[in-house]
Order: sequence, then structure tokens, then C-alpha cells
Amino acid sequence: MDKKRIVEPRTLPGFMELLPHEQIQFNHIKDVIRHTYEQFGFLPIDTPIIESSEVLLAKAGGETEKQIYRFNKGETDLSLRFDMTVPLAKYVAKNYNDITFPFRRYQIGKVYRGEKVQRGRYREFYQCDIDIIGDGELGIVNDAEIPSIIYNIFSQLDFGKFTIRMNNRKILSGFFNALDLQDKIVDILRIIDKIDKVGKDTIKEMLKEQGVSEDSIERIIEFVTTKENVIEYLKGLNIEDETFNTGVNELEQILKYVKAFGVPDNYYMVDLSIARGLDYYTGTVYETILDEHPEIGSVCSGGRYENLAEYYTNKKLPGVGISIGLTRLFYILNEYNLMKEDTKKSISDIVIIPMLDDLSYPIEVATKLRNKGINVEIYLENKNMKKKMNYANKQNIPYAIIIGEDELNTNTVTLKNMITGEQKNITVDEVSI
Amino acid sequence: MDKKRIVEPRTLPGFMELLPHEQIQFNHIKDVIRHTYEQFGFLPIDTPIIESSEVLLAKAGGETEKQIYRFNKGETDLSLRFDMTVPLAKYVAKNYNDITFPFRRYQIGKVYRGEKVQRGRYREFYQCDIDIIGDGELGIVNDAEIPSIIYNIFSQLDFGKFTIRMNNRKILSGFFNALDLQDKIVDILRIIDKIDKVGKDTIKEMLKEQGVSEDSIERIIEFVTTKENVIEYLKGLNIEDETFNTGVNELEQILKYVKAFGVPDNYYMVDLSIARGLDYYTGTVYETILDEHPEIGSVCSGGRYENLAEYYTNKKLPGVGISIGLTRLFYILNEYNLMKEDTKKSISDIVIIPMLDDLSYPIEVATKLRNKGINVEIYLENKNMKKKMNYANKQNIPYAIIIGEDELNTNTVTLKNMITGEQKNITVDEVSI
Repeated sequence: MDKKRIVEPRTLPGFMELLPHEQIQFNHIKDVIRHTYEQFGFLPIDTPIIESSEVLLAKAGGETEKQIYRFNKGETDLSLRFDMTVPLAKYVAKNYNDITFPFRRYQIGKVYRGEKVQRGRYREFYQCDIDIIGDGELGIVNDAEIPSIIYNIFSQLDFGKFTIRMNNRKILSGFFNALDLQDKIVDILRIIDKIDKVGKDTIKEMLKEQGVSEDSIERIIEFVTTKENVIEYLKGLNIEDETFNTGVNELEQILKYVKAFGVPDNYYMVDLSIARGLDYYTGTVYETILDEHPEIGSVCSGGRYENLAEYYTNKKLPGVGISIGLTRLFYILNEYNLMKEDTKKSISDIVIIPMLDDLSYPIEVATKLRNKGINVEIYLENKNMKKKMNYANKQNIPYAIIIGEDELNTNTVTLKNMITGEQKNITVDEVSI
Repeated sequence: MDKKRIVEPRTLPGFMELLPHEQIQFNHIKDVIRHTYEQFGFLPIDTPIIESSEVLLAKAGGETEKQIYRFNKGETDLSLRFDMTVPLAKYVAKNYNDITFPFRRYQIGKVYRGEKVQRGRYREFYQCDIDIIGDGELGIVNDAEIPSIIYNIFSQLDFGKFTIRMNNRKILSGFFNALDLQDKIVDILRIIDKIDKVGKDTIKEMLKEQGVSEDSIERIIEFVTTKENVIEYLKGLNIEDETFNTGVNELEQILKYVKAFGVPDNYYMVDLSIARGLDYYTGTVYETILDEHPEIGSVCSGGRYENLAEYYTNKKLPGVGISIGLTRLFYILNEYNLMKEDTKKSISDIVIIPMLDDLSYPIEVATKLRNKGINVEIYLENKNMKKKMNYANKQNIPYAIIIGEDELNTNTVTLKNMITGEQKNITVDEVSI
């Protein structure tokens, strides 16, 4: 036989592949998100990563379509999902008769976009989505529950103080309507978005270049910088626009209930400058900003939409939802060093180091501890003490149990705290962690 | 705007997409598998679904290669992973210097094979794998731990009595060597595999057609049907073949330790007729059979191999591992009606049904219960009592909390057991499930 050709073992650029201790941290975040989604009664679904291109691209176009992984397998034109929303729309339309509405679902999984490769951009990344879908209608109170979910996730994850910013697209539309600037909303909001970076004066200059009148500019600046008593301020504008007033009403109701949902006052605010995807959201919109790092942008966003699945069904299916881009979030947490030092870095609670030829007793100890619900691994290789302890140290396992002749003869174990170095001789039943 | 074209919302054939109550059961099984893998100290990894074809197909050939989802994106030749073993080999070779050996890893994820579509065959399916990889060598005791992991998973899942069958490929090789039948092993084992279906006589006939001598046929039949005191039987054969004797030794050691690992006697056995993938495994092999449904075949299989990553590195990396094909298993459990009736079918423990216009109090109750760790959803829509209770019933949620004026005024809730119909008026603090 020929000498084998060795292929360099590499992972594609734009694809995150973590070492085990990093993966444990990643999974911890994923577990907190899943657990919180379930605590709020969201049901799991798991749609395929591959869909028929005709189905997946029923709506898509422009930038998104170019990024899609699309290919033929035999005669079939296939695409990899690029978000969780389109598969949800397909799922709800397909299973309309088997679903109970309002349909509260979560989906956590990988999606694919062939973006230009650059630091912090991924072609394969996890999205963690929840949506509440109504059949024909969906009460506005649902929009008040969303900030509570965000609050629960990010306070458990403990990456530092954060603020959930909320707005309502109807208020934006109505306001710019009243200024007769509805055609320029997109451009104006893009400019406004830079206000924290470039300052008010530059913004005014840029709006002027857009042909916005001085009076309107003043009103716009006041509007987007009002952060307190927002409802009173909005009502005081006396704008006679139905959309505007509906939006103010919705926002008022949401603010009434957010507190009952347990979100502390200093964790949420109205920010009239945020808009999110302009062609998609139609009511409430959310962003979540890490207070110490606003430059990162939103780490959890979403909003209310009129109709989820218009490309698959004539049923009107309004919804509200949020998404966490977990892969990018994890990258950022590492870049900014925001991961808690004490985040669990090991899977095992205890590693057993046998110092005996016959491994029966150490194995019995492991079995007993596992039956108590403790994660235990045994170092089974026949190496010297140094190599064995070295393994325990490298794995960041908090406790080691050392078992030699003495322990065997006295039916005990030596439990060593790997952080303090403290150790004690006890029975297996006394082991607790 | 034109009337929109409606695309039929469909899922590709060969792709499993479950309804939420089924997905909850699926996830329960996945969680038990993951939890058990972690209890035994296996570390998580999560390799990309897409790999460079050059890397992924370094070894592949024949049937497998034809089934692969392979395509170009721009200039790059890409493939979707078709198992977890090749990505593991790549991962270990790539991260050799950052990994502590023995490397105990699990990976649970989707893999892709463009198989002919038929009932129970999937093109996208979950594999749940563990492997223990040694650097240069790996103690045989590791092989004794594997049955313990299988036992823990399948006894928790409770699909009925099962048996872990074990064999050792060295014993098979040595035995057929001694009979001078090493060239015919593959054919003979394929025939032997049918013994339960067609009976001994037909097997004898078929072996005769293969040109096996009468004496050898008798010895083969005796060999593959010996199920008790197997080690004594094997030693009594007095075969002077080094491979054979190494195999017997390995099997003897494994049997010594399996008991210490907590596997009851009637849950494992030696079955000298099993071989698994002939070109891959080199020592211990495992199969797991549901006693009531042997016709299903093995639901968890694996074995020991000499060298994991020979296509990516010159390092010798022996290992032992098992795999559970979860998607197919789930299909079978439903086909054979093996899922326990009492398997959790809901995510929420409690659904709150408010009978008030102001939802503040019901929402506060939900928040308090969630803070106690209970999964709670609130029915927030403004519908009549019947529709509200109907929702609770359809979701299979075990408890409902009904809150009307009386409860509000007395600062209590009415907790209803949705199975027994029993209900009681209590304070929020008294709610426990």
C-alpha cells in the first residue's frame, strides 16, 4: 500500500470551532437562553437546515439571496436556511391546523450566510429565536412580556449592566407623516443613528443636506433625544395622526405591564430613535445594549410584525419575536473580555485518580457518585502520579478523588479540592460537591 | 401591488420535522443522552456542518461519497458532514497540541446523507456520539466503561428491556485464521447474521455453498451460538493465534470491570456473532438490542479502532466510541409505540388564565412563579372562558391557574389540576408542582 497522503486538518474561514473549555462556556450561554425560553412557556421546534429553494426563497431577494448557500442535489434545487423566520413561516403555514394559537415557539440552531469573511463575521452561526404568533390577531400585552425574557436571560448571564430599548414603528411613521417627511424616514433614521458618535450639530448639518427644514430638524432632534416621560411628551405633541396615536397607546400599555413582568426600571427605556429593519417590523421594536459597551450594538433585537407567512398562506398571522445571534455574541464576549471568570470550564465535577492495579474499587466509587447525580470521570490510563495529576489540572476539574491502597483497605477516598489544595479522607457517602 | 403568489409550504422528503409535542419528546431523549455523556465526563465539541470537501473526503469513497451533499460556493468545493467521526478526526489532528489525552468528547448534531427516500430513512439526522481518544495508546478498561454509559441512557429512557452485546474483532480474526478461512470472514459473518431469522440448518447449507468444510461449519456454529461462559469456552478452543489470545484477554478484562461500572448481569452479554463495520473496528464491538424487538436491529453501536486520524496526522490515535442515530431511533419508537405514555408532552408546568381586564395581577403571579423556577405561560388574549380553557387543554399543560375578581381581591389564585380536575384556592406562595 502507498504511503498515505496527509490532508491538512483545517476548518473553513468564517466557521466557529471551539476548544472544549470554550465550548462549555458557549453551551452554558445556550442553555441559559433555552431554559429561559422554556420558563416562559415557549415550545421547541427544529426545522431542517436544508429546504427547497422555491420554499425558502419565496420572499428573499437582494443582498440576502446573494449570500445564500444554494445548490442542486440530483434534480432538486436546495438552499440552506439563512434565518429562523422563513422556516417558522413555512412551519406555521404548513401545520396551521395542528398548532394551537397563540403559538409560542423557540428555535435554537445554525443558519448560513456566505458573507465576506472578516473578523467577527460568521458564515455558520447560531440564532436563538422566540416568536409569539397569533391567528388573525395578537394582544399587545404579548409585547410587554418580551423585555422580561430579555431581562431574565442577560441578568443570569451577567455580562454587566444592560438596557432594553423600545420603540414603536407606528409612532415613528406617524411623527414623520406629521412633518410631511414620510419619504425620507429611512435616510433620516440612518443619520439619527449616528447621533451618539458624531453629536447633535453634525446631525443637524446632515439633515439640512437632506433638505429637512430648520423647524423640522429641531422637532426631530427633540423627538429622538427625549428619554424621560416619553408618553407625556408624545401626547403633548398633539399630533392628529391615527397611526401615531395607536402607536402611543400601544407603547403606553406595554410600559404599564413591563413592571409587572418583573423588569426593574433601570433596565428598560423608550428610545424613539430606534427603528430596526424598516420593511419588516410594524409596531414595537426592541434593542438590547450593554451599558459599558454601546459600540457593540444590540445583542438581542426584535419586534412586532403584521403578517408572518404571507408567502405561504392567506391567513393573517401577526407576531412578535426576538433573536439572539449567539455565535457573534460569544465572539464579542471574548473580544471584550466580558465572560465571568468563574464560568464553569469543566464538565466533570470530580476526576478519580486510581493508584491501584486493580481498578474495581475506583470504578465502584465512580458508579456510586454518578448514581448520586455527580459528573465523574476516571483516569483509566496506567501512567505515573505526576501525569495523572497533570491531567486533572489541565481539565479544570474542581475536585479530584485519589484512591490508593490505604483508601481501598479502609473503604474510603481522599477528596482533594483542586483550587485550594485542601484534602480530606472520607467515605464515598460523605462525598458532596 | 400584485396579488402575491402563494408557495406551498412543504418540507423536503427525508427530513424530519416534528410538531411541538413530538419535539418535546425528541428533546427529552436528546437531553438524557447529553446529560449521561456529561455525567461520564465527556467534553462537548461542535464542529461545522460544512467542511472543505478535500478535508471531509480525505478517506471517503464508494457508497458514502455518492450520498454526500457536495457543492461549490464561489471557488470553494464544500461538503456537508455525513458522520461525526471524520470531523472528530480532523478536530483532534488540528487541535492536537491543545487537547488533553485521553480526549473524551461528545458531539450531538445533524449529519447529511442523500439516501434513497423511504420510510424510516432520513437525509438529515441526529447522531449522538462519544469517543475516547488516546495519544499513542489507550487502556482496555475504557472499553469496559462504554456499556455502563449505554446502560444508563437506555434504562433512563425506559423503552423496555435491552441487552448490550459485545464481541472482540481480534477473537473473530483469530478464530477464522485458525480455520484458515480469513479470506471468507465477510461472507461468513453476513450469513451468520441471519441465524435468528432462517435457523441453523439453512445457515449450514449456505456456508456449505461458500465452500466451508463440514468440520469448520460445526465449529463455526458452535462458536457463534455460545452465549454462556464464553471466556472458558474460548480458552478451551486452544487456538494458538496471538491475535485470538489478545482478543480473549481484552474481553476477559472488560467483563471483569463491566460489573463494577454498575451494569446488571442480565443487561449485557458476549455475542461472538457480531462484527460491525469490518474495515474500521479492530477490537471491542458493541450492539444494543431491544429484547422485545430484535428485528429493529442495534439502537446503539460502536467499538474500538486502531487509528482515528491517519488521513490528517502521523500521530497514532486509538479510540473507542459509540453512536446513537437519534432521528431513526425516534422514528422507530413511534412506529413500535415504545414511547412511555407519561413522557412529558408540555414545556409549561402551569398556564395562567386571567379573567380580568387589567392583567397586572396575573402577570405578577407569573413572574413570582417563574422566579421560583416554574415554567409558566400566561394566556394573554382577550377571549371567552371556553376558548381560554380550550387552549390550556390542547397544550397538555398539567396545571392551570385561574385568576378572576375573587382571587384578585383575596390576593390568591385558583390552582386546577388539569388531569384530575381538582382545584383549590391558595396563595401564590403555596403553589408547588
